[in-house]
Amino acid sequence: MIKEAIYHRPGNNFSYAYDEKTIHLRLQTKKNDVDQVTLLYGDPYDWKEDKWQTYRKVMSKSGSDDLFDYWFASVEPPYRRLRYSFIVESETEHTVFTERGFFDEPPLKDIGNHFCFPYLNAADVFQAPDWVKDTVWYQIFPERFANGNSANNPDGTLPWGKAAPSPSNFFGGDFEGVLEHLDYLTELGINGIYFTPIFTAYSNHKYDTIDYLEIDPQFGDKEIFKELVEACHHRGIRVMLDAVFNHSGYYFPPFQDVLAKGKQSPYWNWFHIWGDEIHTDPPNYDTFGFVKSMPKLNTENQEVKNYLLTVARYWVEEFDIDGWRLDVANEIDHAFWREFRKEVKSVKPDAYILGEIWHDSMPWLHGDQFDAVMNYPFTNGVINYFAKGDLSVQQFKDIIVKVLHMYPETVNEVSFNLLDSHDTPRILTLAGENIHKVKLMYLFQLSFVGTPCIYYGDEVGMKGGADPECRACMVWNKEQQDLDLYHFIQQLLQLRKEEIAFGNHGSFSFEGAYENVLVYHKQTEEQSLLFCLNNSEKKEQFYLPFEPVRTLLSDGETQIIDNNLEILPQGYIVIESNKRKNRSGTS
Amino acid sequence: MIKEAIYHRPGNNFSYAYDEKTIHLRLQTKKNDVDQVTLLYGDPYDWKEDKWQTYRKVMSKSGSDDLFDYWFASVEPPYRRLRYSFIVESETEHTVFTERGFFDEPPLKDIGNHFCFPYLNAADVFQAPDWVKDTVWYQIFPERFANGNSANNPDGTLPWGKAAPSPSNFFGGDFEGVLEHLDYLTELGINGIYFTPIFTAYSNHKYDTIDYLEIDPQFGDKEIFKELVEACHHRGIRVMLDAVFNHSGYYFPPFQDVLAKGKQSPYWNWFHIWGDEIHTDPPNYDTFGFVKSMPKLNTENQEVKNYLLTVARYWVEEFDIDGWRLDVANEIDHAFWREFRKEVKSVKPDAYILGEIWHDSMPWLHGDQFDAVMNYPFTNGVINYFAKGDLSVQQFKDIIVKVLHMYPETVNEVSFNLLDSHDTPRILTLAGENIHKVKLMYLFQLSFVGTPCIYYGDEVGMKGGADPECRACMVWNKEQQDLDLYHFIQQLLQLRKEEIAFGNHGSFSFEGAYENVLVYHKQTEEQSLLFCLNNSEKKEQFYLPFEPVRTLLSDGETQIIDNNLEILPQGYIVIESNKRKNRSGTS
Repeated sequence: MIKEAIYHRPGNNFSYAYDEKTIHLRLQTKKNDVDQVTLLYGDPYDWKEDKWQTYRKVMSKSGSDDLFDYWFASVEPPYRRLRYSFIVESETEHTVFTERGFFDEPPLKDIGNHFCFPYLNAADVFQAPDWVKDTVWYQIFPERFANGNSANNPDGTLPWGKAAPSPSNFFGGDFEGVLEHLDYLTELGINGIYFTPIFTAYSNHKYDTIDYLEIDPQFGDKEIFKELVEACHHRGIRVMLDAVFNHSGYYFPPFQDVLAKGKQSPYWNWFHIWGDEIHTDPPNYDTFGFVKSMPKLNTENQEVKNYLLTVARYWVEEFDIDGWRLDVANEIDHAFWREFRKEVKSVKPDAYILGEIWHDSMPWLHGDQFDAVMNYPFTNGVINYFAKGDLSVQQFKDIIVKVLHMYPETVNEVSFNLLDSHDTPRILTLAGENIHKVKLMYLFQLSFVGTPCIYYGDEVGMKGGADPECRACMVWNKEQQDLDLYHFIQQLLQLRKEEIAFGNHGSFSFEGAYENVLVYHKQTEEQSLLFCLNNSEKKEQFYLPFEPVRTLLSDGETQIIDNNLEILPQGYIVIESNKRKNRSGTS
Repeated sequence: MIKEAIYHRPGNNFSYAYDEKTIHLRLQTKKNDVDQVTLLYGDPYDWKEDKWQTYRKVMSKSGSDDLFDYWFASVEPPYRRLRYSFIVESETEHTVFTERGFFDEPPLKDIGNHFCFPYLNAADVFQAPDWVKDTVWYQIFPERFANGNSANNPDGTLPWGKAAPSPSNFFGGDFEGVLEHLDYLTELGINGIYFTPIFTAYSNHKYDTIDYLEIDPQFGDKEIFKELVEACHHRGIRVMLDAVFNHSGYYFPPFQDVLAKGKQSPYWNWFHIWGDEIHTDPPNYDTFGFVKSMPKLNTENQEVKNYLLTVARYWVEEFDIDGWRLDVANEIDHAFWREFRKEVKSVKPDAYILGEIWHDSMPWLHGDQFDAVMNYPFTNGVINYFAKGDLSVQQFKDIIVKVLHMYPETVNEVSFNLLDSHDTPRILTLAGENIHKVKLMYLFQLSFVGTPCIYYGDEVGMKGGADPECRACMVWNKEQQDLDLYHFIQQLLQLRKEEIAFGNHGSFSFEGAYENVLVYHKQTEEQSLLFCLNNSEKKEQFYLPFEPVRTLLSDGETQIIDNNLEILPQGYIVIESNKRKNRSGTS
């Protein structure tokens, strides 16, 4: 047994409150090195005759990746206090893993030996809004979705879709355009819109804010925005805006004031300027990346804090928006985000706070800052497996198991799962324009744990490489739309609504060691769904040890006869099976 | 190479801001499995010709314990942003450890492969008050330190020291008693007093508060307390009080009101009561442990929060106290402690916030809650090695290396290192009344990293088993005091002040593999001190590869001649050596 590979440290994804009664515990061991793990636990104050009173619970193996096995147990301590250790067994060895290292037998005389979950306080439970679990997002880049009112076109607006998107051209997309197409979105089946920035800014992407309290005139005004939010809410669609608080735009008046007045400007401390004068070439102030036109805001300055918190509050309070997506969230201090959360939740307790973070985001996901982050580890795995074909089925499963174990389950359930965005090439382009692969990706994304997001136009087969190509005008001409793909996604969204186990209420687990086909379950106590996705170039056949009850979805040719599955290259099938749920945490 | 033993996850003790410019990084590998680790790092936005610009730095081995080696590097990224990976090498193997697992060669094309320290924001730097690093505490249990005014004796007060301490007897200790003995404390050399609770309560230990805003009349009144704090400050002594916020006493008026009026009481929600009526036998409400007379306070209730924050603020603002020690700190919600910190620091930015937590306390030590915790992992190691003789030198070193690596260095520097307290047997009793062992423990404690605390009376050789025995009256009769021990500790405190490397400014590292003698360095750039402590029953001799410059302290018989050390059983020597500092983090 490799003791050095056995890992548990209280906190993070290894011990957390799942709800106000339940504690989840996880242990990591070297892959295939351990046969059984038993949780030894009790209330720290429960002693009889100088002996700590303990209980035991065999942990389930909740998943394996390339290096590790993960073990899971859920406990509901009656007094909300818990001490615990792990009895780790292989065929030949036996050890007890405690906070003070390894023991041959459980060291029950000193409670201090054991890991501690001191108290399950409700205030510390990670609680994201419930509605997010049942939300499917649609990301709109407003300049390029629809031009509903040519009166607000910016100077030099080009005819819709008649030119390639560039970093600086404009096509006049606006809120009236969105309003006109709400039927389209409702028919597709989404129930959340994430708008990239809509506040007054210089560029077409609007990430260089000039006025955080005004709508960019090319999109409309506050009245039309209010109408848009109300119309969305009327249809059951939530609205999330993009908060670009890490940096302002070059034309943000406080920055212009600093450029004009130097140290005399009352806004001098709103930025991080090195020295007593300001220069822009090269910049002697902190910037986003090395972009001199995006000066980093000093979020440690009380005035800046007050200003940004006012902004955060204003759009929720006055326009009833449902969430904030936080741009470059990882480069702003944690202290600011804690205040931001308090401010936003004080106005709307069930607002969704979503951070843009591409890497391991655990420090932001303790319940005191964000509800979720953009799940790029998921994105990378899906792209590399389905779109690029760079991974075997086993390698992809390893990545997904890692993704599911890197955060608490509470976090996974509201993770923002995207395939692409305005910051990446479009999914069809990533997939080498193979529409079958795109379908498999949507099937996987839309049946996975979390809250999925569709990038505008992907659903009708829009293509495009990296920015600016991925920001082309939405294709509205039905003849140029891939309606088959549209209907496929529509069908998936319908299934997500109708079948209890399809979406976030089903627990996810991989099935078997099928070499070329991805097979997984989504299960609740009522329903068990089996997903088979063949991302290979070969027809595959194998025996499935489950009785199919009914077929929910298939490519039309894949079928299961007497438990024998025959699945075409890039084929798929979703069946309800008779396998009963065996609760074991995430996969 | 055991890849499963290689561990790093951004955050906690593995990556943290040491100060506003410096990032510390640590890696853990299986012991003796790896020969060299090189940090590969760069600014995430620094690209030239599609290639990420990176730098390399060989990491130092900062320590080893029974299972792991720890590697350390410190970097000062010019733009305060950092991406990094680890090149891990043994004689036969070579691998690159990244956020996305292991690679054969550094994966430089995709920045997303690398671990991320997105931005060093000053607001997130863990910053404990500077003065704590140079403070030596003295813990006073006020009922038992000195009776300076018999007029405030509680009913039934016993003559000083004329009875064994019991859970319920009183000896009349008070603030005037402390005032009378400030000369004594100044002569000893301490410069901080930690008082166990002083607010109105029922018991002799006062952990069952009745009124958080009043001084217990047996100790004096607010006027005399103010005088005491001022007198302490005049002598350069800081004052820390004990905040018992997890639970109130049974006679806390809000609890009495609930007992009297049931659900009609406006204080009903100040506690966690299960059901619609309250019973005390057995209690149907949350308690500390299973003690029905200590009802847990509902710190999620806004009124309770306001009340306790008012208390926290009041004693700092009105009496200028310098710190709060937080009783049962781990059972109160993190959200409350975040507000507590803000409140206290808003009044006195350099107040010290110390949590009572006996186990792994990382979740409280991110800079948003406590400055430090009571360092029981240190205590346990010291007791088991020196006092009980249960550990070999190597095992003790393993524990101390673990202690030094479980938190960031910033945390270690203000860790509250105690040998005993009102909650444990006294150190002399734990050491089997062997005064020589006690001396070795003080030598170790007072030269270790952190802020040490002496429990009242230990310095004159008081004995006593577990509570209530350890709470006996202070021995003031010089004939009953162990003056040799007193002078020894006085001398250590003097050395801590006079010799730059002795206390917190020196970095700590173990030296060599001496089987029976504990040998360690304390070093600054100016000074190198060598400590040799023989906790065995045998005289030991060995060669020391350092030139002694002068002897700072010795047992009188241990000496070094021509680099040959001869050290008696339980002997010790501290010398200044000519070894120069080689900065490598903690050891």
